[in-house]
Amino acid sequence: MSRRTLNIALLQLSFSDDLDANQKKLADSVAKACAQKDKPALIVFSELHNGLYFCQQENADAFTRAETVPGPTSEWCCALAKQHQLVIVGSVFEKTTDGDYYNTALVADSDGSLAGRYHKTHIPYDPGYYEQHYFKSSSEGFHPIQTSIGKLGVLICFDQWFPEAARAMALAGAELLIYPTAIGYDPENSQAQQIRDREAWITVQRGHAIANLIPVASCNRIAYEAAPDTSQSSGINFWGSSFVCGPQGEFLAQANDQDETIVHATVDLSRTEELRKVWTFLRDRKPEMYHK
Amino acid sequence: MSRRTLNIALLQLSFSDDLDANQKKLADSVAKACAQKDKPALIVFSELHNGLYFCQQENADAFTRAETVPGPTSEWCCALAKQHQLVIVGSVFEKTTDGDYYNTALVADSDGSLAGRYHKTHIPYDPGYYEQHYFKSSSEGFHPIQTSIGKLGVLICFDQWFPEAARAMALAGAELLIYPTAIGYDPENSQAQQIRDREAWITVQRGHAIANLIPVASCNRIAYEAAPDTSQSSGINFWGSSFVCGPQGEFLAQANDQDETIVHATVDLSRTEELRKVWTFLRDRKPEMYHK
Repeated sequence: MSRRTLNIALLQLSFSDDLDANQKKLADSVAKACAQKDKPALIVFSELHNGLYFCQQENADAFTRAETVPGPTSEWCCALAKQHQLVIVGSVFEKTTDGDYYNTALVADSDGSLAGRYHKTHIPYDPGYYEQHYFKSSSEGFHPIQTSIGKLGVLICFDQWFPEAARAMALAGAELLIYPTAIGYDPENSQAQQIRDREAWITVQRGHAIANLIPVASCNRIAYEAAPDTSQSSGINFWGSSFVCGPQGEFLAQANDQDETIVHATVDLSRTEELRKVWTFLRDRKPEMYHK
Repeated sequence: MSRRTLNIALLQLSFSDDLDANQKKLADSVAKACAQKDKPALIVFSELHNGLYFCQQENADAFTRAETVPGPTSEWCCALAKQHQLVIVGSVFEKTTDGDYYNTALVADSDGSLAGRYHKTHIPYDPGYYEQHYFKSSSEGFHPIQTSIGKLGVLICFDQWFPEAARAMALAGAELLIYPTAIGYDPENSQAQQIRDREAWITVQRGHAIANLIPVASCNRIAYEAAPDTSQSSGINFWGSSFVCGPQGEFLAQANDQDETIVHATVDLSRTEELRKVWTFLRDRKPEMYHK
């Protein structure tokens, strides 16, 4: 049987508020990833890569960061995807023409077209992550984005903690879950708590792979970012730890929590169908029981 | 703040088709567990502990193993619970008066009363696990069982693979998820596949802890059992690996895949409320989006 494998690269990078420098770093990293022997067919950026993670605090001025889709960032992603003949999952603070604001993931296909977008559904609002101040929650549900390389189940960061989102994407036909992310250690927590938080973040996503028998690719930013008003908060130490796991949650590649790096992995999309013959979770769901 | 801790013991044992010997082994193990410094307030048995795992094949004679609840096994569990002044989660092949058959978990409270029962919802039907031949699927939904030590979210084995069951129990107020289990290696699989299967089983359950921020206690049987008709199948090598994890999926205790053993752990039920203030997953669910 011929197998459907897919080379993936995740760009685990730090960002400043210099948009041009961020885009140059991303473009250079894409070129570097493509120079590898196993050229990626899919490259994932981390969440809100145009600048610092501005949601650490509530600040009306930050709304000026928003842009339309299509718009400058989506066009830049599409051009980069076409240039390198691969699929890119990017991220942008989106303002719609009717005045809504979304935390949006973009999928640029290898022909330079915009294959689709996803509006983040689960929006955090807790110390350091005041996203409900900025973003409306999606009202669209969970729909995989069809691309030249398959149906991508694109979700975003806080969605990671919700098995419902992963399941809905899988039931709608997603072949792979992809999470652009910005999450980190709270410097005020003990080291033991920091580790528990990070391990929980990794483990719950591996669980989504297992429950649905599809791979997961999760790309997080790295490095410490101070809060805009340092008197209010200790900032966030983004923990990286970007990873790709297979459909039984097995690690295929994993970055550390210290370094900017490119994570390369090859997933075998044929495994899903094989495993679902043995582990018949989708067949044996009892949806009529879940709301009793 | 006073903390609500709970000492738990899991009895990871092998069984034969000698009911009296099985019950003696369980009773002796309960006594042994209670002789520890941190006497357990909750003891969990593995799934269908009255005999061999008869669902390896389809066999009409095996229906004679079924019994009513209340009945001999539930009464035995309740007497043992009262004798040692603790809560026991047991398991039985139940036949109801109206002719239904269930894979049932029993909860015996420390006063000797039957606190409640749970009928398995997700019933496997795949090589080695022909449970749909024997058991009707529950039509009752997911309801925690109130006991003297708290609200127990009792599920059974194959339910482990379904985040929906864990979530429904948590939303209904379960303070702890408990899984009596009988699962093992397929001897015909490669060692690498055997390990992936076991690790997936562990990881997906840790994921349920994390997504709901409650501890998980999972008690599996141990040892190889041949199939009734050895010409049809290579049997099952039950992989043990019983474990207790905390509400962020952190291991508190874990058995190996070789030995009969008693797993002791102490969970801190107060952690759930503390964690849910920081990780606001239940608040931020979007149920109206999960069915679009």
